[in-house]
Amino acid sequence: MNFSASIEKLIEEFEKLPSIGHKTAVRLAFHILNSSTEECEKFAETIVNAKKNLRYCSVCNNISDTDPCEICSNAKRDKEMICVVEDVRDIAQIEKTHEYNGVYHVLNGVISPMNGIGPNDIKLKELITRVGSNDVKELILATNPNVEGEATAMYISKLVKPFNLKVTRIAHGIPIGGDLEYVDEVTLAKALENRTEL
Amino acid sequence: MNFSASIEKLIEEFEKLPSIGHKTAVRLAFHILNSSTEECEKFAETIVNAKKNLRYCSVCNNISDTDPCEICSNAKRDKEMICVVEDVRDIAQIEKTHEYNGVYHVLNGVISPMNGIGPNDIKLKELITRVGSNDVKELILATNPNVEGEATAMYISKLVKPFNLKVTRIAHGIPIGGDLEYVDEVTLAKALENRTEL
Repeated sequence: MNFSASIEKLIEEFEKLPSIGHKTAVRLAFHILNSSTEECEKFAETIVNAKKNLRYCSVCNNISDTDPCEICSNAKRDKEMICVVEDVRDIAQIEKTHEYNGVYHVLNGVISPMNGIGPNDIKLKELITRVGSNDVKELILATNPNVEGEATAMYISKLVKPFNLKVTRIAHGIPIGGDLEYVDEVTLAKALENRTEL
Repeated sequence: MNFSASIEKLIEEFEKLPSIGHKTAVRLAFHILNSSTEECEKFAETIVNAKKNLRYCSVCNNISDTDPCEICSNAKRDKEMICVVEDVRDIAQIEKTHEYNGVYHVLNGVISPMNGIGPNDIKLKELITRVGSNDVKELILATNPNVEGEATAMYISKLVKPFNLKVTRIAHGIPIGGDLEYVDEVTLAKALENRTEL
């Protein structure tokens, strides 16, 4: 106990956050103490409010203040195209590209037998119901390009076969701005395999 | 605006903190949203309480829940020895060594003409009053070993000359566990200059 009790408590709270070690927690705590009382109260209020207003979209599982979420309730979005992602944050990443106008489906995880996560532990049933009951034309599988993500994508593509719709997987290849020298062999092999004609 | 309004607000609040960029802010915000309502409320409460309970010790300027602070009001601490530091956090660093039993004086900064900070902008007057009115035997100058810290230490040592007390500066040299190969020349020169007899 090197600081006074209330500061130590604040430091402890910051240490609970991911990727925040003791030194950073101390710096953050002192930043808070150096800001005005109004700012502190605003910060505290924002935390409580964000948690209080938290809703899950009943259509796509996106985190939202409203239900259905802003994307699902937007009439301009193409409801015939569903992009399947692992996590809510992936939606924000894809939205940033401004290239996608369809809707989403958040799985809230991937199938991972190693961690005891089976098909019933993620929002797969909901996806199937959605695909079955709506006029969906294309399913874009945008799970992460790792073992679990690939396996989940394969699993979903087999699962939706009976619905006879277009199932696509996001492309693998060399990142823009990347350097051939530093790209791993698997990615490079994929990039060669999926080469496009100019 | 990629997330819902209350989440964006929370992310913005986290982004205001030092060394927290957008990606980290998003990760922290989602960590908060994934924890329980009680935990969120506790975090919020801790922030407000820490700010509310914040006091400055009227003796040494240390941040504390009480006035005078725990160190100044501790009868076992040697009041004849004052260690002068730049920042409240430096006290915690020195306390961690368990080697120092005197009291402290926090300057709340250093003299830095480049940043428009003169002797009157830091708690120097208070230090002189303290040295003059108490039975102080030694003043340890523990400002940081950079240009401003050294200059401030020199300035203080001249300022307290009339009081005829022992004024010391923390030692410069090679850090324990360091490697001669990676030590800069100035530090190495200092280490040679201040070599001690075995």
